[in-house]
Amino acid sequence: MNYRMILYYLAATMLVVAVFMLPALLISFIFHETSAVIAFSVTIAAVTVICLPFLFRKPKKTVMRAREGYIITAIAWILVSLIGAVPLWMSKTIPNYIDALFETASGFTTTGASIMPTLDFAPKGMIYWRSFTHWLGGMGVLVFLLALTPSSSSGDSVFIMRAESPGPQVSKLVPKTRQSAQILYKIYVGMTILQIVLLLLGGMPFLDALEISFATAGTGGFSCNSAGMALYTPYMLWVITIFMILFGVNFGIYYLLIMRSFKKIKSNEEIRYYFLAILAAIAIITPKIYSIYHHSFGDALLQASFQTASIISTTGFASADFNTWPTVCKMTLLLLMILGGCAGSTGGGVKVSRTVILFKCIRLSLRKLLHPNTVTKVHMDGDTVPDATLHFIYIYFGAYSFIMLLSMLLISLDHMSLEGTITSVLTCLNNVGPGFAEVGPMSTYASLTWFSKVVLTIDMLIGRLEIFPILMLLMPANWKRSRV
Amino acid sequence: MNYRMILYYLAATMLVVAVFMLPALLISFIFHETSAVIAFSVTIAAVTVICLPFLFRKPKKTVMRAREGYIITAIAWILVSLIGAVPLWMSKTIPNYIDALFETASGFTTTGASIMPTLDFAPKGMIYWRSFTHWLGGMGVLVFLLALTPSSSSGDSVFIMRAESPGPQVSKLVPKTRQSAQILYKIYVGMTILQIVLLLLGGMPFLDALEISFATAGTGGFSCNSAGMALYTPYMLWVITIFMILFGVNFGIYYLLIMRSFKKIKSNEEIRYYFLAILAAIAIITPKIYSIYHHSFGDALLQASFQTASIISTTGFASADFNTWPTVCKMTLLLLMILGGCAGSTGGGVKVSRTVILFKCIRLSLRKLLHPNTVTKVHMDGDTVPDATLHFIYIYFGAYSFIMLLSMLLISLDHMSLEGTITSVLTCLNNVGPGFAEVGPMSTYASLTWFSKVVLTIDMLIGRLEIFPILMLLMPANWKRSRV
Repeated sequence: MNYRMILYYLAATMLVVAVFMLPALLISFIFHETSAVIAFSVTIAAVTVICLPFLFRKPKKTVMRAREGYIITAIAWILVSLIGAVPLWMSKTIPNYIDALFETASGFTTTGASIMPTLDFAPKGMIYWRSFTHWLGGMGVLVFLLALTPSSSSGDSVFIMRAESPGPQVSKLVPKTRQSAQILYKIYVGMTILQIVLLLLGGMPFLDALEISFATAGTGGFSCNSAGMALYTPYMLWVITIFMILFGVNFGIYYLLIMRSFKKIKSNEEIRYYFLAILAAIAIITPKIYSIYHHSFGDALLQASFQTASIISTTGFASADFNTWPTVCKMTLLLLMILGGCAGSTGGGVKVSRTVILFKCIRLSLRKLLHPNTVTKVHMDGDTVPDATLHFIYIYFGAYSFIMLLSMLLISLDHMSLEGTITSVLTCLNNVGPGFAEVGPMSTYASLTWFSKVVLTIDMLIGRLEIFPILMLLMPANWKRSRV
Repeated sequence: MNYRMILYYLAATMLVVAVFMLPALLISFIFHETSAVIAFSVTIAAVTVICLPFLFRKPKKTVMRAREGYIITAIAWILVSLIGAVPLWMSKTIPNYIDALFETASGFTTTGASIMPTLDFAPKGMIYWRSFTHWLGGMGVLVFLLALTPSSSSGDSVFIMRAESPGPQVSKLVPKTRQSAQILYKIYVGMTILQIVLLLLGGMPFLDALEISFATAGTGGFSCNSAGMALYTPYMLWVITIFMILFGVNFGIYYLLIMRSFKKIKSNEEIRYYFLAILAAIAIITPKIYSIYHHSFGDALLQASFQTASIISTTGFASADFNTWPTVCKMTLLLLMILGGCAGSTGGGVKVSRTVILFKCIRLSLRKLLHPNTVTKVHMDGDTVPDATLHFIYIYFGAYSFIMLLSMLLISLDHMSLEGTITSVLTCLNNVGPGFAEVGPMSTYASLTWFSKVVLTIDMLIGRLEIFPILMLLMPANWKRSRV
């Protein structure tokens, strides 16, 4: 294990986080929020003093292997959550550190599950910071770092990208990792700005537009006021709906759009199934909630579309208490929770492409069982899916199920109903945010025990990094020297 | 496709069912249950007249391929359910045929989910028949047929055994399929008789002892009176508990016991994890229900043990309303529902061995991700698990998840809560019987719509035959001629 390289990357990541705390510090300064100003300043100063020296100790060996990539990613995300929580806790916005950690991990992993019953007394700088963690975590703090790093300074950093980016296959747009990271962030910034402008045009206050757009872009779901979505007009809700859907799309598609490779877009199967799932869910939910919304088709369609977009993209904004909707609507949302967005998007869940590939594998295997001599391979987007990729899709689903069931058992020790227990794990593991029953869209996670909060924090990290990096960290055997 | 062979096997299976209706007919005759006598007589006569001629049209080609094995098994189980339901419906014990079909499929698949709110007015012959379906379905009606068939009359009927017997690998005890089937049924009959004797010694009425033992042996769970387990003494409950556990064990273990191959038993990992899961569940549940049972450790231990045995073996007898137990107890039972018994037992669920092998695959794959040159294979019971077996374990879990989630969506159209929706599918797909909420141990499935009953009936069959045979039947592509 190349410890020097690991330290170098970790220090650089922490510094990125510290730099991004500066706008939050500025906002707190403008609004005279003394405790917040002190908390941000101390955190930024401490991180800088501790981490800056490591940047001058560049690793000698720059060749990165898979394990360094996974280990760096896993530790970086844990550290980022631990440090990002410090200002919230130090300013007494969230007096309990475990709670602050839960909130911050929920922010960076773009889950959006909150323990704050009200935001009315929170400093504006803190609310901004909380929302900004969504934006940074959405595309990935390490991917951001890769976009900055001069390509000569590190070896093949694709392993970091592979560990941090969601999906069954690595989503490099161009051969160079660094350039890919830059393109991704350019598209990301562009789309975020577009959403901010559209919300401002609809009359949304500036800070709200900023924070709602951060939360949408990262598919996070933190609100920026205690009333949630209730304050916003149908126009604003439709804008948010459309952008939630757009941020759940593979960013590679946008790159192909810019490159005018329409043929490749047309052959992309994942996006087809993604939109199919969205349309199906809206078609199921709208008629079922029609009577709840006083027989107004427009309202019912808006609510069905907003919640479908919110859950499939794993954003988790709540415009309605879907906890009170009919069971078939809740079950539809529960399935969307697990499905999640596209690979290479900022959305969570198991991803549409993984689900489609698994389905194809099953169909093919059944056919082979009956006609053993049929030689066929699983195809996706016109290409054969390599066996190694298939294997890791199986392993991913297996590990996902084990972690899910084990977490549910641990959470069942808390005081919640079975529905609350099951959905709290599903919603955190898939980085959605709200669940049903005790953790429904109009409730918070505040009343859970510290033990449950820690378990769900780990689930959020496991979900965001798609299982493998965190599991590797938990396996002591991996820390031993390679036997080769 | 060898249609003549398929017809031959199907006809023989139906005749086996007709023959086994004779004791039920006798009981109804003794108790002067006219409508039941007529219903059984008509069914037996009709099946004999229709099916007997096919027995004289033996197939010319006796070589059986995988597809004939799977197709025979799938159709046989559907037919057996359809015909087994006729007497219940014709005697007006269950006036609605869909209900009667649900009840019979629930019987043969050893699920034990019932739509009968009371048994007080049901003919004794019908209650006997209902319980007996558990016994016949437990070890398998086709395996019974294989034990009868002279080995020269059919080719390699191992595919039937493979399709009907639970577990990731076929459980032939000796090289000959026919002999294996005979040994399995000998052990099965022996253990059933032992349980009957032990229950009689405890003072249980004769018919009760017979029916409870049938339901235990097949890990079914139908009660033989409206009061359920409430009438029985702690001695009887302990006897039932122990036999539920024993019938969840791989029958290969008993064969090894008879053969005195203790070394092989010792190297069997599945049975170790099976008992570990039982002990762990009892240890979790007992202290949590201690206060519910008036602080009597004996009562709490008995209830915890009984329910753990009942659920892990997927029998589904209910001695207590575990619906009212703390969430951690319910979650533990829910996990046991999915886990199920050992491969080669009469129990349902995904099976302990599949779960253990999947876990080992995940651990190994993570290790390989970090140390790519580690060449290792998954071992079970000291042997390497072949890649083809691993592949079908992955596919099994994938298909299992898809079917489970799709069924939940379909059942959510009914009027139940999310908890009832989720657990009704889990309990039927894993052949357990009772779930939570609306389908809890003290309720029935009577109030569900006919659509839900049909979906759950299909789930029970899919669960009993471990997915592949029924799925193949549903794939029209499989009915086409082989391309080879």
